Amino acid sequence: MRVPVPLPEAYRLLNHGPVTLVTAAHAGARNVMAAAWAMPLDFDPPKVAVVIDANTYTRKLVEAAGEFALNIPCAAIAANVIKAGSASGRDIDKFVFAGLTPFPAQCIGAPLVARCVAWLECRVLPRPDNEKRHDLFLAEVVAAQADDSVFRDGHWQFSDDSDENLRTLHYYGGGHFATTGKTISVAEA
Amino acid sequence: MRVPVPLPEAYRLLNHGPVTLVTAAHAGARNVMAAAWAMPLDFDPPKVAVVIDANTYTRKLVEAAGEFALNIPCAAIAANVIKAGSASGRDIDKFVFAGLTPFPAQCIGAPLVARCVAWLECRVLPRPDNEKRHDLFLAEVVAAQADDSVFRDGHWQFSDDSDENLRTLHYYGGGHFATTGKTISVAEA
Repeated sequence: MRVPVPLPEAYRLLNHGPVTLVTAAHAGARNVMAAAWAMPLDFDPPKVAVVIDANTYTRKLVEAAGEFALNIPCAAIAANVIKAGSASGRDIDKFVFAGLTPFPAQCIGAPLVARCVAWLECRVLPRPDNEKRHDLFLAEVVAAQADDSVFRDGHWQFSDDSDENLRTLHYYGGGHFATTGKTISVAEA
Repeated sequence: MRVPVPLPEAYRLLNHGPVTLVTAAHAGARNVMAAAWAMPLDFDPPKVAVVIDANTYTRKLVEAAGEFALNIPCAAIAANVIKAGSASGRDIDKFVFAGLTPFPAQCIGAPLVARCVAWLECRVLPRPDNEKRHDLFLAEVVAAQADDSVFRDGHWQFSDDSDENLRTLHYYGGGHFATTGKTISVAEA
């Protein structure tokens, strides 16, 4: 079940380095793209950093709307993630092309992506120099949700017998992902 | 065996979101800290982005030297990574405290960490606004190496029967990591 994640725990959704789907919408247009270069930037209020190439249609929508969402996909939709990274939304409805279903966000105009396992709704913190020189966007997370079958009590709950299909994805490149694997726990000093 | 990684392939070392150890040195002092918030920023020349908290001793050394390395640890040294994240190098020799062994880098003054599986040597691209407001450092990768038993031909080579101890780590927080898990390959469109 999709449940809210308290904002001070939202960074944990992204802390382990999963691939993301970036969604954006403006003036009746919407798009989704795959982005592996995303990370937390701060705890509370939570912030994120993400690279969004200047040539993408999503970039135009993010710049126009000042908002985007980071959706965290799972193994069940790995093929859809690759499709979302392999065509431009300028020419086609990328949700239809990639077999992804949008649904409304809570606080922003960008849609969220169904069958993902976590969602971060973000408002851009304008940093024109980063955006122009590095395609780097900084943003504040204004709402977060997760599938409570895999993320609850502020932590991802993957264990060795977790459903393989619900594990998050780590993108190697070239169409290859790792799933989030075995857990190693170390007593903190 | 530790072998050079061509610079245009260096981003792949970090693309799947592993935790890192940041090393830095200046004027005879050296330090190492754990950092989960690191990602590629560009392909060629390769660049990276990493968050280095203003309160850390490593930050002082990075600011003084204008250089740092991102070392990518593996499961065999997960406990050492937690130790490196649990004390300040101001008071102790953190390499000794964490049981980590430094060795010389190829192009920068910061040491590299033995028993890791990849190493990126980085020169800071000064962006004072990012550094002051967000603890965010951007840097160019000037040399890269990897253990060719797990990274070769420009790709991580983890398979289902790979040595568990050499898998890279993804940090959940609270002393818990995921190892890099099973591979999913999707034919690109």
